[in-house]
Amino acid sequence: MTASVVDLLREALGDRVDTTESALEAVRADKSGHAARGRALAVVHAERIEDVQAVLRIAHATGTPVVPRGAGTGLAGGANAGDGRIALSLARMNRILEIRPDDLLAVVEPGIVNADLNAELARHGLWWAPDPASRAISTVGGNIATGAGGLLCAKYGVVRDAVLGVDVVLADGELVRLGHRSVKGVTGLDLTSLMIGSEGTLGVVVGATLKLRRLVAGQARMLTASFADVRAAAAGAAAVTASGVQPAIMELMDAASLAAVHALLSLPAPTGRESLLTVQTDGPTAADDAAQIAQVLEDAAGRVRLAADEAEGEALLQMRRSLHPAMERLGTTLIEDVSVPRSALPAMFDEIVRIERDYGLTIPTVAHAGDGNLHPNFVFRGPEVPDVVWRAADDLFRSALRLGGTLTGEHGIGVLKRRWLRDELGARQWELQRDIKRVFDPTGILNPGVVFAD
Amino acid sequence: MTASVVDLLREALGDRVDTTESALEAVRADKSGHAARGRALAVVHAERIEDVQAVLRIAHATGTPVVPRGAGTGLAGGANAGDGRIALSLARMNRILEIRPDDLLAVVEPGIVNADLNAELARHGLWWAPDPASRAISTVGGNIATGAGGLLCAKYGVVRDAVLGVDVVLADGELVRLGHRSVKGVTGLDLTSLMIGSEGTLGVVVGATLKLRRLVAGQARMLTASFADVRAAAAGAAAVTASGVQPAIMELMDAASLAAVHALLSLPAPTGRESLLTVQTDGPTAADDAAQIAQVLEDAAGRVRLAADEAEGEALLQMRRSLHPAMERLGTTLIEDVSVPRSALPAMFDEIVRIERDYGLTIPTVAHAGDGNLHPNFVFRGPEVPDVVWRAADDLFRSALRLGGTLTGEHGIGVLKRRWLRDELGARQWELQRDIKRVFDPTGILNPGVVFAD
Repeated sequence: MTASVVDLLREALGDRVDTTESALEAVRADKSGHAARGRALAVVHAERIEDVQAVLRIAHATGTPVVPRGAGTGLAGGANAGDGRIALSLARMNRILEIRPDDLLAVVEPGIVNADLNAELARHGLWWAPDPASRAISTVGGNIATGAGGLLCAKYGVVRDAVLGVDVVLADGELVRLGHRSVKGVTGLDLTSLMIGSEGTLGVVVGATLKLRRLVAGQARMLTASFADVRAAAAGAAAVTASGVQPAIMELMDAASLAAVHALLSLPAPTGRESLLTVQTDGPTAADDAAQIAQVLEDAAGRVRLAADEAEGEALLQMRRSLHPAMERLGTTLIEDVSVPRSALPAMFDEIVRIERDYGLTIPTVAHAGDGNLHPNFVFRGPEVPDVVWRAADDLFRSALRLGGTLTGEHGIGVLKRRWLRDELGARQWELQRDIKRVFDPTGILNPGVVFAD
Repeated sequence: MTASVVDLLREALGDRVDTTESALEAVRADKSGHAARGRALAVVHAERIEDVQAVLRIAHATGTPVVPRGAGTGLAGGANAGDGRIALSLARMNRILEIRPDDLLAVVEPGIVNADLNAELARHGLWWAPDPASRAISTVGGNIATGAGGLLCAKYGVVRDAVLGVDVVLADGELVRLGHRSVKGVTGLDLTSLMIGSEGTLGVVVGATLKLRRLVAGQARMLTASFADVRAAAAGAAAVTASGVQPAIMELMDAASLAAVHALLSLPAPTGRESLLTVQTDGPTAADDAAQIAQVLEDAAGRVRLAADEAEGEALLQMRRSLHPAMERLGTTLIEDVSVPRSALPAMFDEIVRIERDYGLTIPTVAHAGDGNLHPNFVFRGPEVPDVVWRAADDLFRSALRLGGTLTGEHGIGVLKRRWLRDELGARQWELQRDIKRVFDPTGILNPGVVFAD
């Protein structure tokens, strides 16, 4: 059977079927540190929609599980392909099919890297707003599959707000086109939104019609504010939100993450429990907004530094961007992704401090403070997540839910968070979601075990 | 059987069950002019979630169809209750449960009128952006059920962009809470979006967590530009869109609609085929934006009039707001709702001119020109839509689809457009949607015949 599936794939797809050890090894893992058990049957490098359809037809006929995969930058194990799976890579389907400045839309293949798309769009004075921290390496299809967020979401929205339609190959290989090209459209149920964040469990996204924005005019402004501890920084962020001035970016780094970044960049160590807010304003009122925010943060006992120019602003933001490499130097990192209502940010940081104490861990944490999305980093040695980390993570999730938040703001459920899914959804909603999955995938070949446990 | 359903309702809900002739007559129709055949069994005026659950439990046990209803301002016949139905009115569930300026959210019951909510929000410096033309009389729950749009959508989004979560009573009476209170959240499938625009076919929305904006600061600016004909006005609108300056409102009235409004307001008749664009700009760059747009429109051969102050601006907008009363004076009106990519607006107006000629009709048309959503008005005498109007509407829908557009931008499918649903969705997507409907409503008691034909 195993041999025959690969034979069928080779017959249909020729050398786009890859069974080299390096390819099979590469698709086992994503950036979460988690790796699937065993080896996939093959990696198929799809180059066109018909390739995807051919794979699904074979998978459907043989009952073989398929794991769709973009750049493999996910953080929840949702694209990891192990024993018995076909890994279906969309990375080569990376063309921009259409850019329409007059309609503010682009039609793209799923494998295009977010930053590559935006480089091209910029030539037309346009951009696609979703900006996950991985945008230099993650694909638009992956951004859609996870419902990615990023730094700019409070002001410019998430992926769900920036997709007009998706073309999807269904479990049996049929192609459907969901959504529309117009700003408005309410014909039937909103299956486009249903597909966003579905993590490969409902179909394979082979094309997307994206809602664009015009590039924001004028010079962005950047400032940082350092605080005595993370509680004070979180309170500063809450004060900015309450002031009504809308930053484009507002990032918070706690003492442990700031210290790690300083070490990576060979900067002098921060003092005590120093924590940092990094704020960017943009648009026609960028300068005024930055001045107002600076005042709010000074009133909240922050030490404010306003960047004099773009270069200095970029240097300040570089600190935040260095967080992931800084974590990698400390060990294996499980990056969590809870999200809470903005006003609950200080309370959520209190919970993290408590969890650090209760479990004897250090949990360097950064937050998209403008939208209440926190990334606590559990750092450990070796390939296996220690049990104490899972117990602390469990406590973390339950704390977020208690505060009116969610398990995952932007990374998705994947395999790493599925055991908490029912806690957030409730039994009945979980059943509805699983039944919808069955409508799309009655035989269970689409990314089985992801989101919904086997 | 019929008697026993009403008996069961009365037993559970007492005098909230209304079987007066006037109530049964009122729920037969909405603002579309369409009325359901026969009479509902009863109208239930739900006052709390438990009432809705009681109705659904009885409906589930007895296999009785339920038609949820807000203010009855729909334009597609989606809330019309006839023979054998229970009309479930949410109008009395009209409380605001929570307003959180710090989290930019409000939690409301579904029956609150959009304008009433916004009046209260304004006291906190906040607003809920969806602004259907019916906002003075339509409910938030109805706005959600239809996925309503409005005038401000190109700049400020549609309902889908402004709802974080919904509480829904399912077909068997169980309550589920969908969505989240945080800006970000990707836990499982996006059932909140699935519920938006589902027109009562998946469940009954009994609560909503709304995403708010802060009131836009500063003075809005208003201008009109009159053109020799509708083609020229549409080209003017396209030029504004292409210029990159984003109006808050950009409404187009063709010659027939403008003439009807002038007659209603006792103004001198417009000359020839004169058509009008009405544009509002807002925010910190409102004055500059208005000046730029005025220049673009003059370059496009428009005669521009810039309002000197707020009162004059309001008077200009009043012209557009008088369209529906003006149509009502002409006869019974079937208001259509096609939406096309913005660049296709002039081509869509060409199609309407052709359809007028081919079918010997006058079709006064207004358009939300900033987002490509057109409302052609078919005016006729008497209660029944004449066959020629349906044939012309059929041509209209097919033209919109050919131009990359949709059947309905913001009114929904209801009963009036369901026969074209499959043309837009394709057979397979239509089946997927119907199967999802069955997941939520296996026995088919939720608004049967709406969206999906019996």
